[in-house]
Amino acid sequence: MSRIASARDISFLLYDWLQTDGLCQRQLFAEHSRETFDAVLRLCEQLASEHFAPHNRKSDDNEPHFDGERVILIPEVKQALDRFAEAGLCAMSAPESLGGMQLPYTLERAGFAWFLAANVGTISYPLLSMANANLIARQGSQTQIDTFARPQYEGRWHGTMCLSEPQAGSSLGDIRTRAEPDGEDELGARYRLRGNKMWISAGDHELGDNIVHLVLAKIPGEDGQLLPGSAGISLFIVPKFLPAAAGSIGDRNDIALAGLNHKLGHRGTSNCLLNFGEGRWLPQQAAGAIGWRIGAPGEGLKCMFQMMNEARIGVGFGAIMLGYTGYLHALDYARLRPQGRPPDRRDPHGPQVPIIQHSDVRRMLLAQKAYVEGGLALGLYSARLIDDQLSHPQASARTEAGLLLELLTPVVKAWPAQWCLAANDLAIQVYGGAGYTRDYPVEQFWRDNRLNPIHEGTNGIQALDLVGRKLTAHQGKAMALLAARIGATVAQAGAADDADSPEQASRLAEALARLLEVNASLAGEPDGERRLANAQSYLLAFGHIVVAWIWLQQALAARGLRAEVDRDFAAGKRSACRYFFRCELTKVGRWLDLVAEGEDSALRMQDAWF
Amino acid sequence: MSRIASARDISFLLYDWLQTDGLCQRQLFAEHSRETFDAVLRLCEQLASEHFAPHNRKSDDNEPHFDGERVILIPEVKQALDRFAEAGLCAMSAPESLGGMQLPYTLERAGFAWFLAANVGTISYPLLSMANANLIARQGSQTQIDTFARPQYEGRWHGTMCLSEPQAGSSLGDIRTRAEPDGEDELGARYRLRGNKMWISAGDHELGDNIVHLVLAKIPGEDGQLLPGSAGISLFIVPKFLPAAAGSIGDRNDIALAGLNHKLGHRGTSNCLLNFGEGRWLPQQAAGAIGWRIGAPGEGLKCMFQMMNEARIGVGFGAIMLGYTGYLHALDYARLRPQGRPPDRRDPHGPQVPIIQHSDVRRMLLAQKAYVEGGLALGLYSARLIDDQLSHPQASARTEAGLLLELLTPVVKAWPAQWCLAANDLAIQVYGGAGYTRDYPVEQFWRDNRLNPIHEGTNGIQALDLVGRKLTAHQGKAMALLAARIGATVAQAGAADDADSPEQASRLAEALARLLEVNASLAGEPDGERRLANAQSYLLAFGHIVVAWIWLQQALAARGLRAEVDRDFAAGKRSACRYFFRCELTKVGRWLDLVAEGEDSALRMQDAWF
Repeated sequence: MSRIASARDISFLLYDWLQTDGLCQRQLFAEHSRETFDAVLRLCEQLASEHFAPHNRKSDDNEPHFDGERVILIPEVKQALDRFAEAGLCAMSAPESLGGMQLPYTLERAGFAWFLAANVGTISYPLLSMANANLIARQGSQTQIDTFARPQYEGRWHGTMCLSEPQAGSSLGDIRTRAEPDGEDELGARYRLRGNKMWISAGDHELGDNIVHLVLAKIPGEDGQLLPGSAGISLFIVPKFLPAAAGSIGDRNDIALAGLNHKLGHRGTSNCLLNFGEGRWLPQQAAGAIGWRIGAPGEGLKCMFQMMNEARIGVGFGAIMLGYTGYLHALDYARLRPQGRPPDRRDPHGPQVPIIQHSDVRRMLLAQKAYVEGGLALGLYSARLIDDQLSHPQASARTEAGLLLELLTPVVKAWPAQWCLAANDLAIQVYGGAGYTRDYPVEQFWRDNRLNPIHEGTNGIQALDLVGRKLTAHQGKAMALLAARIGATVAQAGAADDADSPEQASRLAEALARLLEVNASLAGEPDGERRLANAQSYLLAFGHIVVAWIWLQQALAARGLRAEVDRDFAAGKRSACRYFFRCELTKVGRWLDLVAEGEDSALRMQDAWF
Repeated sequence: MSRIASARDISFLLYDWLQTDGLCQRQLFAEHSRETFDAVLRLCEQLASEHFAPHNRKSDDNEPHFDGERVILIPEVKQALDRFAEAGLCAMSAPESLGGMQLPYTLERAGFAWFLAANVGTISYPLLSMANANLIARQGSQTQIDTFARPQYEGRWHGTMCLSEPQAGSSLGDIRTRAEPDGEDELGARYRLRGNKMWISAGDHELGDNIVHLVLAKIPGEDGQLLPGSAGISLFIVPKFLPAAAGSIGDRNDIALAGLNHKLGHRGTSNCLLNFGEGRWLPQQAAGAIGWRIGAPGEGLKCMFQMMNEARIGVGFGAIMLGYTGYLHALDYARLRPQGRPPDRRDPHGPQVPIIQHSDVRRMLLAQKAYVEGGLALGLYSARLIDDQLSHPQASARTEAGLLLELLTPVVKAWPAQWCLAANDLAIQVYGGAGYTRDYPVEQFWRDNRLNPIHEGTNGIQALDLVGRKLTAHQGKAMALLAARIGATVAQAGAADDADSPEQASRLAEALARLLEVNASLAGEPDGERRLANAQSYLLAFGHIVVAWIWLQQALAARGLRAEVDRDFAAGKRSACRYFFRCELTKVGRWLDLVAEGEDSALRMQDAWF
């Protein structure tokens, strides 16, 4: 069995649960069938296993370095990405009109899961490019799309998102990069950009012919001043090389690599400090990085949020799959490593047993299974919402999918970033001392995963987004919709004729009722700071309730598996669901108590008292 | 303020709380006074700051390597250790008769806290040596003490503990190293040892003239067979070089370094695979590593457990101080890094505020404070128990201290290994993206600390030790004693005239009562596997109750601080205590519920279902 991911689980989630093959009845996906879906999944598994996993450790040992001119990566990265591009995978979900496979987003995410688990450092390059191309494809002019999105879908060019600056990370309203108007050409309104961008993943490298940066910057007002706050932010396409005729490249743009970050993990992906417009290069004989505006002036953050939301779901998937591969490695190790004897077979004359026979080791494996399979199901559910938002035949269903997706995005990002990282911690613990050495991969998974609670909005920011915005947006419609969907699962499980489902249904209903009570009390809190003071506890509770709901759906779907060959698999799903309800969902009460009682220790704490 | 540790907090814990200066009234410490104590603490702070902290990152970047003959460390390690030895710190708590300072163990631990926080990799060498020398000093013959313990107290020789083998880590009864009788000499019964030892910290290096290994091995029976299980284990002193006249060294012993482990963290300490008796060297013209038995045959594990228990408390302190220094770094960063604006001051024209002004950042800092200051107090309390066990004038008090220490040892090891590691995770989160880079130290603290839940008995093993042995040992006397001590604090806090103490007293009393109920139900469980199935949850609950008790004692002691200059410090202690009771102790109910209901998800889970 692969230690990268589980084809069996992916197949179960896609078909037995989400009935993804049903999407082929939609016009957008009419060219596809379960056969084409499965062929793509097999291709992803194969490429990930043969070309991505083998250099995962080598990339970590040999992080990108800058020789003053170029960023040097180990050659395996480009070799793997060339295979990936040759297979057309850079355009899996892109429309046929742009040369894409026009596959459902759900399928794309399921396929990419293999690469994220095999080598998150290498796959990050095309993932960023695709998100970049998707933004341009949806919001750019036709010329911008043809010039900047197409070569990324073809895998020839790459892309980034440039948001943070040294003084502005979480607080994007404080960016200072200036975009001075510089006329107009066939690519649109043209600007010269000057400023410093920080934490730019894949910000420089030589994996393709060009790098398309999507850059947040401010257009000065008539007084030459930048508007404070996020209202002044616009979005620009700023390529490393200016585009020339027929998809080739021209002048080097005025973007200089100021340095690379040396990270705890995720080392395969270059992470850069970029200086725009410092005069290092003179495109068209003048200093200043040339860029074209995409979207309206002042709407940069709104435009970028499409990519950000996609990136947040991408972060969730990255976290999930690092947890997932760690779990499969730990499981394999636990089955092979003999050590000790169970309490009822202590006879020292007898042989040692594989550690999976120790209940405490099974506890750690079961927790990992609950986290990573719960996470993957959550991720694919959110991917399905994107498909429904874009292609559901009913307008009301498209609206509902959009509402739910918006509400769930902070959870899809933050929940795996926390709990699948916890799974990686448990994987190390299963390995014991071996897990602490670099001879085994679990320590790298843990280091790689530690990025995920930080980037694309820290988990703390996600909590503020959930409580401060998402919960009450659209007059609370999204929350009401989620409650109704959970209620439907509760009703279905409550009517099931097995031992566990009705009990789990009532536990979930109880947790949901409590959540809704707490929502009401939050809505009644007039003080903004107090309302947000326990946002983190709220996010934890909300996330666990959502994942319990997702687990209950999985358990119900597993009960539908009647074949003898599925017996163990289905028992595993039911057991993990049972574990989640007994050992995880029971955490929710305390978290919600903290929110309800307005726990204020941190609020009251003063700087001088630390 | 130092970012290594807090002299103010150490002083508070030692004097305002534990009244360590009172120990000077005991004959053993009659030469000492608060002045000598403070001089030693200042010396430790100074040496740690000037000679240990500066090369902490360099040791991590340049881990020990083996050139085929020698283990090479960066020179700063030996320079620091020479200063440490010159100052006499290798013998801080050793008796004067052996050249020691004869300081209380509590003082020694408080002093060493500075070094653990500054550079755990470098300080591990003398800490291991001291634990080794202490074992020999208590259990060896006079000649063994003079030959092997003295040079370690002088800092000229080093020491290790050699327990694990490739096939025997947690299950020491399965070791296969053989010790064949080889006559007797002035150092005692002599043996030739053959076998492979694994995970030997400081197992080889050239920091001193010799390395004294304490090795677990089995003496074959008359049939040439090794007795299975731990009953057959004896303990041996096996030096790298045979001792010669007047403290000098002779023949190289037959111990070969087979390789170094390359670790996630703790990289400054060499970690070795050692082959004993493979014939690489021929001491006294024959193959086989020469060793002398210490203690009676078959009592090796019992003898070693003195060092193991000391090592477990040492692990706890290591975890505490890595968490502590991470907290101080994060606090400093949060005070200096401007980013964003609080909800009630969102005007983008205004300046950004230091992130400590965000309530969610204060939450993360407060949690760290609660973990690390709670941990340090717990550690020093256990150190005080060691002092009381050895030197309390009343025999009953000595017995009681020993009982409590035995019960608390798994907690002192496992609680900081879990929660102070969690503190390091929070420290990274406070730094955000910067924390994920190797430009800041918090990522290293996190990696270094990840060892602590693994070594010297995993946290899972500590849980089994607590539930399977410690709880019921001595007819449950230790548990009854702990309950009585907690009860005394509850009574004191209940009678206090402030707003928080009585409420906290009643919360603690309630948690304790529930714990005792669960103890009773555990005692009634006849099935060994079921009794131990939730040992991990039990340990979590037990640990949090113990630390809540320790926090309540701190808060009460802080209320005794009347000086104006102590106002902020005391408010900080009370706030962290309040946080611990509201946000941490409230976790206990669920953990105990899992134990009480005999949660059996992991027990029921079958290998094939994963």
